[in-house]
Amino acid sequence: MSLLEKIRKQKPLIHHITNWVTIYDCAQITRSIGALPVMAHAKEEMEEMVSISSALVLNIGTLTPELIEAQILAGKKANEKGIPVVLDIVGCGATTFRTEMSKKLVQDINISILKGNQGEISVFAGAGGEVRGVESLGGSDDIKNVARSLAKKHDCVVIVTGKEDIIASAEKVDICNRGHRIMGEVVGTGCMSASVLGCFASVSENIFDASLEAMRFYGYHGERAADEVNAPMEFKKRLLDEIAK
Amino acid sequence: MSLLEKIRKQKPLIHHITNWVTIYDCAQITRSIGALPVMAHAKEEMEEMVSISSALVLNIGTLTPELIEAQILAGKKANEKGIPVVLDIVGCGATTFRTEMSKKLVQDINISILKGNQGEISVFAGAGGEVRGVESLGGSDDIKNVARSLAKKHDCVVIVTGKEDIIASAEKVDICNRGHRIMGEVVGTGCMSASVLGCFASVSENIFDASLEAMRFYGYHGERAADEVNAPMEFKKRLLDEIAK
Amino acid sequence: MSLLEKIRKQKPLIHHITNWVTIYDCAQITRSIGALPVMAHAKEEMEEMVSISSALVLNIGTLTPELIEAQILAGKKANEKGIPVVLDIVGCGATTFRTEMSKKLVQDINISILKGNQGEISVFAGAGGEVRGVESLGGSDDIKNVARSLAKKHDCVVIVTGKEDIIASAEKVDICNRGHRIMGEVVGTGCMSASVLGCFASVSENIFDASLEAMRFYGYHGERAADEVNAPMEFKKRLLDEIAK
Repeated sequence: MSLLEKIRKQKPLIHHITNWVTIYDCAQITRSIGALPVMAHAKEEMEEMVSISSALVLNIGTLTPELIEAQILAGKKANEKGIPVVLDIVGCGATTFRTEMSKKLVQDINISILKGNQGEISVFAGAGGEVRGVESLGGSDDIKNVARSLAKKHDCVVIVTGKEDIIASAEKVDICNRGHRIMGEVVGTGCMSASVLGCFASVSENIFDASLEAMRFYGYHGERAADEVNAPMEFKKRLLDEIAK
Repeated sequence: MSLLEKIRKQKPLIHHITNWVTIYDCAQITRSIGALPVMAHAKEEMEEMVSISSALVLNIGTLTPELIEAQILAGKKANEKGIPVVLDIVGCGATTFRTEMSKKLVQDINISILKGNQGEISVFAGAGGEVRGVESLGGSDDIKNVARSLAKKHDCVVIVTGKEDIIASAEKVDICNRGHRIMGEVVGTGCMSASVLGCFASVSENIFDASLEAMRFYGYHGERAADEVNAPMEFKKRLLDEIAK
Repeated sequence: MSLLEKIRKQKPLIHHITNWVTIYDCAQITRSIGALPVMAHAKEEMEEMVSISSALVLNIGTLTPELIEAQILAGKKANEKGIPVVLDIVGCGATTFRTEMSKKLVQDINISILKGNQGEISVFAGAGGEVRGVESLGGSDDIKNVARSLAKKHDCVVIVTGKEDIIASAEKVDICNRGHRIMGEVVGTGCMSASVLGCFASVSENIFDASLEAMRFYGYHGERAADEVNAPMEFKKRLLDEIAK
């Protein structure tokens, strides 16, 4: 059974603590894949919600200290339960607060998949890089090795998104060349990929393989949705519908 | 004059304290119907905003203690003013916090329409049921009587959404068989139905009849929007546009 | 080089502290124009985020005291840095809290562009007006002079949106007759225009001219998107896609 088939059969609950901009899209792509999304951030229910979940997706796009606190509570419970944790360090490097909170999350939680664009990952690793808001303006020239070192240091899979996506573990680096240029013009495509990663990781024993398959799945459907379309919102609609098929 | 005509003529203000996932869709469906949506949650303006509103829609999808506090303030003012209050107990049963806050809201506010899926309503009523995130995994086999008892206990209309929707008062139970399978695959269709209920209830003296008409209206337009479409986002767009006609 | 060309070349960062209803649309229209959106509201990063931004867009649609505090921090930094600040006083007049917070923001920050509908601006100026939720139910008959006086008093450009948009400075008043009736039926068209204003103002020395060009640009694309469409969501999709071309 493929991971996608497993997801559609098991309907895993994917708990998100994410940002207010793309929260709908993250919920819908999870639903389109066939998993069940839940978006909850009250500290009062974090541990209980995680205890019925199969993966946790954290995103710092519109972070506040309270949200980080909820993320740490959820992350620790996820670690205790042994379910995968995806962390998308949106805007790491744009402000000291984002960089520090990214580091705090990785320090306090055992992250399974650490994801960012070239700028965000480079800044996080202390390897240079520039981030304007949530956009990478460039990062380390040696980004593959940076990702691999980071993966080794934190015992996780590191994903660097970009024209080609890098998937790195301590042992190996793979590339995903799928996707379409227009995905970079649509707000939310990055955040949604973290949800896809959470869905695939939730039904797999091998985080690296699940990550690679998730990125390929996402990129492939991005290509199909982009076919003959050169318009961001028409594209986004088709992407979510394509995946739901 | 039909309730829909009344809404379009009077343009009632429908105050929402809802979740961050589907907040846009709730606002837009209210606008598409012909009412005026307002989404506000600051405690400082709750009572004044309610005082110019014609219905109040509460939803606990992304609840926090502060949001519940605002909902209680708003609900009490709505009771004082005599306008209908719709409560959507999203995820009741998934965590103790959601179950307790649902009960607190029903205790502190006179709710006009209590809405949930089979799992949520069953858990709320203490009649079994299982909820994974915000999805029902099953509830009481005797759900019609559960709904009716609940309606009697709290002197309100209880709506149990599902393949067929149950509309119950203390005296009677009706069924709405409208709608389309795809509505279950689109994030937000449940939340939007609470807005529709709020719109219809705001211009009617009879909450039961207004609820039945609202659910039929929504289901009918769902069927029309789903016609020849098998894609969640294309469906959602058509649903909101169909209703705006 | 036109302002649009400048935006696409410079990719200015447009920092938003906005509402939870239309936050996605504001981000996407900024992206569609060719600028970079960032939506952030943690007080801990306000000043640093503003320091890398080229314009600041404030919107009180779902205000709380904490959000207003963040807006004031951001606004003061924007003033210090000399970048334009757009303020959209959504719902001013609907509650005392909104009216007072609107005034506080204008008192504490040097606003470049103050925007509202006829009811909101009239109430703000103390010239009558009625607001139901976020909808104008009417304002001063002498709205052009009200706008001009307000512009003079606060040394800013005042924009009154409506069937025709008024753009006023202390010295002159201009009218933008572009746009389409359907824009009034789509939640978010008002909020998005504030983002457009922020984008255009960020690359211009002349706030009045930039405002006029922004409103004409937005209205023109609204007309094009509305061509042969009479459905709000299809329209919104086309608007965002039209602008991205």
